[in-house]
Amino acid sequence: MAKHLVIMAGGIGSRFWPMSTPQCPKQFLDITDCGRTMLQQTLDRFDGLIDMNHVWVITSADFHHLVEDQLPGIHPQHILLEPCMRNTAPCVAYVSWKIQKEDPEALMVVTPSDHLVMNIPVFQEVIRKGLDFVSEENRILTLGMKPTCPETGYGYIEQGEQILQDEPSIYKIKTFREKPDLPTAIGYLKQGGFTWNAGIFLWSVNTIVAELRQNASRIAGIMDQMADYFFTEYEQTVLNELFPECERISIDYAVMEKTQLAYVLPVEFGWSDLGTWGSLRTITLSTSRMVENGNAVIGNQVTMIESSQNMVKVPNGKQVVIQGLHNCIVAEHNNTLLICQLSEEQRIKDWHK
Amino acid sequence: MAKHLVIMAGGIGSRFWPMSTPQCPKQFLDITDCGRTMLQQTLDRFDGLIDMNHVWVITSADFHHLVEDQLPGIHPQHILLEPCMRNTAPCVAYVSWKIQKEDPEALMVVTPSDHLVMNIPVFQEVIRKGLDFVSEENRILTLGMKPTCPETGYGYIEQGEQILQDEPSIYKIKTFREKPDLPTAIGYLKQGGFTWNAGIFLWSVNTIVAELRQNASRIAGIMDQMADYFFTEYEQTVLNELFPECERISIDYAVMEKTQLAYVLPVEFGWSDLGTWGSLRTITLSTSRMVENGNAVIGNQVTMIESSQNMVKVPNGKQVVIQGLHNCIVAEHNNTLLICQLSEEQRIKDWHK
Repeated sequence: MAKHLVIMAGGIGSRFWPMSTPQCPKQFLDITDCGRTMLQQTLDRFDGLIDMNHVWVITSADFHHLVEDQLPGIHPQHILLEPCMRNTAPCVAYVSWKIQKEDPEALMVVTPSDHLVMNIPVFQEVIRKGLDFVSEENRILTLGMKPTCPETGYGYIEQGEQILQDEPSIYKIKTFREKPDLPTAIGYLKQGGFTWNAGIFLWSVNTIVAELRQNASRIAGIMDQMADYFFTEYEQTVLNELFPECERISIDYAVMEKTQLAYVLPVEFGWSDLGTWGSLRTITLSTSRMVENGNAVIGNQVTMIESSQNMVKVPNGKQVVIQGLHNCIVAEHNNTLLICQLSEEQRIKDWHK
Repeated sequence: MAKHLVIMAGGIGSRFWPMSTPQCPKQFLDITDCGRTMLQQTLDRFDGLIDMNHVWVITSADFHHLVEDQLPGIHPQHILLEPCMRNTAPCVAYVSWKIQKEDPEALMVVTPSDHLVMNIPVFQEVIRKGLDFVSEENRILTLGMKPTCPETGYGYIEQGEQILQDEPSIYKIKTFREKPDLPTAIGYLKQGGFTWNAGIFLWSVNTIVAELRQNASRIAGIMDQMADYFFTEYEQTVLNELFPECERISIDYAVMEKTQLAYVLPVEFGWSDLGTWGSLRTITLSTSRMVENGNAVIGNQVTMIESSQNMVKVPNGKQVVIQGLHNCIVAEHNNTLLICQLSEEQRIKDWHK
């Protein structure tokens, strides 16, 4: 059974402005200044696990060239272009129907394209184990991130019965919990057995297609209508016409919360969704050798004077002097500058058009 | 008696970084975003008073092309290039010796190139009156800025006997006072009869040359050595060799504080030396039609949110969002960004190399 990788790269990353813009969202940027974009890093961490011929990217038509430029080794027919955003269920359905047509025995890993993983060896071990687990039919596995704080920005997965005894072990999913308020999140951490839902899924193509047929029959019907045209010259035209008819629904709502086949593998490999400037600050502080006064600085010509607890991200080569600034974000990208309180970062998406 | 204008444009404006840089100091910049550089505005405000053939600029050799570019109408032989900085006395001596050679009956106005004047009609009236006053030999006139606050960053001029009774009246100068501490400055304002020394001087060329001979004989001697070569092809070579031998001394120390011929004309024409970001903030606030929360903003794509009392100066076209910032300078120029407390602006010159 061949292993396929699906990278979902259609997000718009509005909270990471001005780095992330509608023209070039977060996944296409080298946010951490490591020399590779988030999308490229996503592919890189599957190196040795998945054959390049089995890599798929699904994105918005607007980002076609960005994907081609950043992942030159990918098969042209494996870059899937959604004509509009319909959340993750139609997206997963489209790519699953296509993969099934090409390789009916495929195992799939589905991953976001804009998350960070620090410990690649552990990540690879987890993916290997997960793929092995779902090589048996009728198993849908999600990776659950062991929580490091009572984060209120993520959904939580509550573990049920333990299925595999060895470490890391796998559990039936008891229930999915929406983003909690702070007391609830603190309760989850105290109680134990809860992990963050990071949107990383493993399954066989037959299992997910069957589950979509059962739980999202309208979407499955639209896919069936289009399937004859997949891998033909008419594919995009048909897609442009019919895909917009799919309802807007996430794969979590459409399948994960309904299926009886959902399992969770709790993991710890230094994960961040880099959802906000604050999370970039946390990651930068944890990986920098030199940290002074809690300033996370990305940019090679930045001087910090009498300043503390800031997140500074400016282009290399840009000379910056900051004095007397505390608890702020200073971010410059594409000739656009943001200076704001870190505590107000959730409002950033409201400040740009 | 022809009237000559001397614009001193050799300053380095280190407190206005990052706008002002050693390569392009403040006088060559359009600090207030009015469409003309400080140097050009300096010339503009003498329009109708001084014939372009009688305008002289003395600057550093490094800035030759900046002056040529910004003041295209100026006679090439009237752009004087100091090979090194020797403060204002050698500078004034050099240009005075040259003017005397060209026009022994000249009246001169000497002005800095990087100050701001708001009320041009009043300024012109003052200059007319001052030139009239110094058309009689043996009078050295300085314009004294009527103080609007107990500023500790300027030298003060103490008025003596009143010479002319009409408004504005002219006084003998009793004494020059160095930059005072705050209690002293407050005392000056209470007492009255004190003005700020803005470095604007009026005199006949014969008077200043005679005073330099008497009070700065070494500098005068060097000028005499060089004078034969002025307006010849050897001028710059001789200047490069001999000018550096001049001592570093200001015209205030060398002449003004020693001469018996010094008079002051107290004036009020909306003057600022734009010495600091704070003074630009004051000027911007006083001239802007729309001011919110004490933010002085120069830049046409700046959004201020929950911010107050800031000075923001960024290029037009640069998108900037600032939230939760108070009492700060945000200045961007030439791909260099400064963010600092307004209260610390005197330290800016220490923060850049």
